[in-house]
Amino acid sequence: MKTMNFKNIAILLLIGVVSFSCTQKNETKQTSELQNSTVFAKGKKITNDNFTGTVWLENLIQADTLNQNSVGSVTFEAGARSKWHTHPAGQILLAIDGIGYYQEKGQPKKILRKGDAIKCPANIPHWHGASSDTKFIQVAITGREKGETVWLDAVADSVYQKKP
Amino acid sequence: MKTMNFKNIAILLLIGVVSFSCTQKNETKQTSELQNSTVFAKGKKITNDNFTGTVWLENLIQADTLNQNSVGSVTFEAGARSKWHTHPAGQILLAIDGIGYYQEKGQPKKILRKGDAIKCPANIPHWHGASSDTKFIQVAITGREKGETVWLDAVADSVYQKKP
Repeated sequence: MKTMNFKNIAILLLIGVVSFSCTQKNETKQTSELQNSTVFAKGKKITNDNFTGTVWLENLIQADTLNQNSVGSVTFEAGARSKWHTHPAGQILLAIDGIGYYQEKGQPKKILRKGDAIKCPANIPHWHGASSDTKFIQVAITGREKGETVWLDAVADSVYQKKP
Repeated sequence: MKTMNFKNIAILLLIGVVSFSCTQKNETKQTSELQNSTVFAKGKKITNDNFTGTVWLENLIQADTLNQNSVGSVTFEAGARSKWHTHPAGQILLAIDGIGYYQEKGQPKKILRKGDAIKCPANIPHWHGASSDTKFIQVAITGREKGETVWLDAVADSVYQKKP
């Protein structure tokens, strides 16, 4: 019986090692999964007052005489959003990750999810940002040929929180 | 001894089940990882002869009077590439995943990796595609205000294979 007990303990240890190694592999996988989901660098924290909450910007393409579009990757922490604003030559938004909102003046708020693409018409006041509990990463493609973004009022909490 | 053998078999089976379940979990993870890393849909296989190899296109934004840029996600299978071509209003490429190449006429081939952004000047002949052993996903932002893409010759294997 003593030999049996020793064998049983050895076997239990073996099963334990196999299970532990399995868990470890899955944890490593999950970490690399999070890293893989971010396409562009997070960039620098925006310090001007055109945004509410914490927002990061990585400039990808600067507008110049070769191409008058600027392209940037914007990361909104949960709850963060832009002020109302207009673009003289319009804008295109590509949703890269997370859950975000987009709203044009007088229209209901739209939900943006990974893979969505949206066109903001020229001179139409709108805002965009993250949902209240999930961050949002977008690529913004902004035509600069007719001038710079015109910034308006902050988005009131009651407007931000209103259901789409 | 007969009881011992039966026990040993049962134990071996148990270890087998734990290991198998571990492998299964990792495989499921890997599949979801691939799905997660893809931001945009793969779209439809391109059937025109402007490309060599297998290439997929998902149109994200159509150019119109609101915004004259078109935006598409292009997936090049390993070895696939465009023909040489020019854009009358230039183009911006964003590397979303995999490893790709970009080359302007008379310049060395550049390697594009996830997160890279590149500006193709107007009317400069160039080509882009996947590396020979890794697929490449790009977002192409193309100005349509001065007309459509002008397609030229196929990229010869000797040019495609030349080291950057």
